[in-house]
Amino acid sequence: MSIVQTAAAALRPVVVGVDVGGTKVLAAEVSPEGEVLRVARRRTPGRRVEEALVETAMDEAVAEVVAGRRLGGVGVAAAGFVDAAGERVAFAPHLPWRGRRVRAHLAERWRVPVLLDNDANCAARAEASYGAAVGADDALVLTLGTGIGGAVLLDGALHRGSNGMAGEFGHMQVVPDGRGCECGGSGCWEQYSSGNALVRHAAAALADGATGALADLVAASDDGLTGPLVTQAAEQDDPVAVAAFASVGDWLGVGVANLVAAFDPAVVVVGGGVSAAGDLLLAPARVALERSLVASTERVVPPLLEARFGPEAGVVGAASMVRDALGRTPRTRRRSRRRRPT
Amino acid sequence: MSIVQTAAAALRPVVVGVDVGGTKVLAAEVSPEGEVLRVARRRTPGRRVEEALVETAMDEAVAEVVAGRRLGGVGVAAAGFVDAAGERVAFAPHLPWRGRRVRAHLAERWRVPVLLDNDANCAARAEASYGAAVGADDALVLTLGTGIGGAVLLDGALHRGSNGMAGEFGHMQVVPDGRGCECGGSGCWEQYSSGNALVRHAAAALADGATGALADLVAASDDGLTGPLVTQAAEQDDPVAVAAFASVGDWLGVGVANLVAAFDPAVVVVGGGVSAAGDLLLAPARVALERSLVASTERVVPPLLEARFGPEAGVVGAASMVRDALGRTPRTRRRSRRRRPT
Repeated sequence: MSIVQTAAAALRPVVVGVDVGGTKVLAAEVSPEGEVLRVARRRTPGRRVEEALVETAMDEAVAEVVAGRRLGGVGVAAAGFVDAAGERVAFAPHLPWRGRRVRAHLAERWRVPVLLDNDANCAARAEASYGAAVGADDALVLTLGTGIGGAVLLDGALHRGSNGMAGEFGHMQVVPDGRGCECGGSGCWEQYSSGNALVRHAAAALADGATGALADLVAASDDGLTGPLVTQAAEQDDPVAVAAFASVGDWLGVGVANLVAAFDPAVVVVGGGVSAAGDLLLAPARVALERSLVASTERVVPPLLEARFGPEAGVVGAASMVRDALGRTPRTRRRSRRRRPT
Repeated sequence: MSIVQTAAAALRPVVVGVDVGGTKVLAAEVSPEGEVLRVARRRTPGRRVEEALVETAMDEAVAEVVAGRRLGGVGVAAAGFVDAAGERVAFAPHLPWRGRRVRAHLAERWRVPVLLDNDANCAARAEASYGAAVGADDALVLTLGTGIGGAVLLDGALHRGSNGMAGEFGHMQVVPDGRGCECGGSGCWEQYSSGNALVRHAAAALADGATGALADLVAASDDGLTGPLVTQAAEQDDPVAVAAFASVGDWLGVGVANLVAAFDPAVVVVGGGVSAAGDLLLAPARVALERSLVASTERVVPPLLEARFGPEAGVVGAASMVRDALGRTPRTRRRSRRRRPT
């Protein structure tokens, strides 16, 4: 960067993405190229507190990131159901918001453009803008964490659905009268293909007396059996861990085949903590996808790709959402704003 | 209609929809309001004949409908996989077409605009233009016949997918290692919710010695047990027939819940032969949809509606497709055409 470019960048207002999850609030300054430049974290105050307390935690994290510079806009990724208008968090399992007009409250606090969407949609925006879904008109983006988050990109835009609830792939039933799910249903896909399913599979094998790298790692860990430990053990070829990924991957492929039959996307992107295992997860998933997909020899089977972004997908996508909106501001307004003395 | 209007209508070129199914070719003149004005039928020559023979049958049916008047355009609904460009029939279980450029061949024969799509998409166009999906931005249209046909309307337009294969809902797996399917897979949704599933359910009960209205109807019929007989018996409260609809309807609701979780549409329309039973099918389906759908108390559950169009859905939708395209012809071209002496 030349000195002139550096000076221009310093004057440019800061665009921030905020990801509000069940345990933490992550705020980040994100560059126009999707790079995370600076981050701040706060603990999420819990779900049995006053609704505004979450916004106070967000406020603190954003202020720390902005550090006295000019704020241009904030995109918010929320772990919950956001309505079709992007105004309210209808409900969120781990947050106190119940139908709260989160977007308006935050825009009033910060006095800049604020946009709100759910975390899975924001992760999809990150992949579509800078990651594995760049250039794909139609893409499905799955986030395998505790459960399955999902987002639908059609003609390059997010399909949010008439309630803003499109992409709830994790609660499609794949087993009649199957495993009970937190949603109240049974046999939901995320009961068979998710971080929870991975740990459950490995835990059952260990309870049956399996030994090896995973058993050793668990014995040495303060936190007991976790998803990252299963990934670590699978990378060391531990048979229990590899079998857990094979099962979760096989179910991933079966469910993706169902989605491909319905949407016929050009690409399917898999992110979230479980996807950090890469081909340990995706190789068995690709086999199951080819096997389960209708007319797989008569079509181009979409590639099943690992997401580019990890835990920062939410903030990157949230920032991209608001940056896109700022870019759509009519030219005259942008010009007059530039002319304003600063 | 005034005499002037009648004269204008007589001069207006005829718009025709053609539905090419496994057993018959149906051609129809369709009014701008979606009314079928005149029809002609031919037998489909089978799937082991020369590819062009199907087009000859279509030619005859269209000529009979046009009856010497001026042809404006033809929309074709084909029972098969049509590519994303709407040019080729990639393959069709009951027709000889294997990757044939059907659209171009027909446009050359008829020397008018010809558009091609699969029958499920055409049925959806009929419902979106004139039927149960009018005014709904996002709708799913299912056709329950031998199997399940499906179509996806998003923002008022058909979502065809990157291979032109979106909406293959019938081959989403709902039972692991379930019933074998003609597609080569197992546990496909249409094995549990379709005309075939209805007949299979009723046949099993009759084989177990069930008596009643359905058994009597079957004994008196030359064709043995058929879907329409099950419908007729269910309308007479025959317990075997009612139970068959309850099972097919329950599975319909479970599968629709999966689709609603993924797409979040404003409305779901069910057509095809099985839907002629109305609430015998849809009442149990609505119960299962409410029960199976994630967050059903936090959202507007989309209404599950009976399609307006029956066996004519394909021709009406095919005609609507080509009429819309004619309407999009640039104004200058339309004007110059009007000025042409006739």
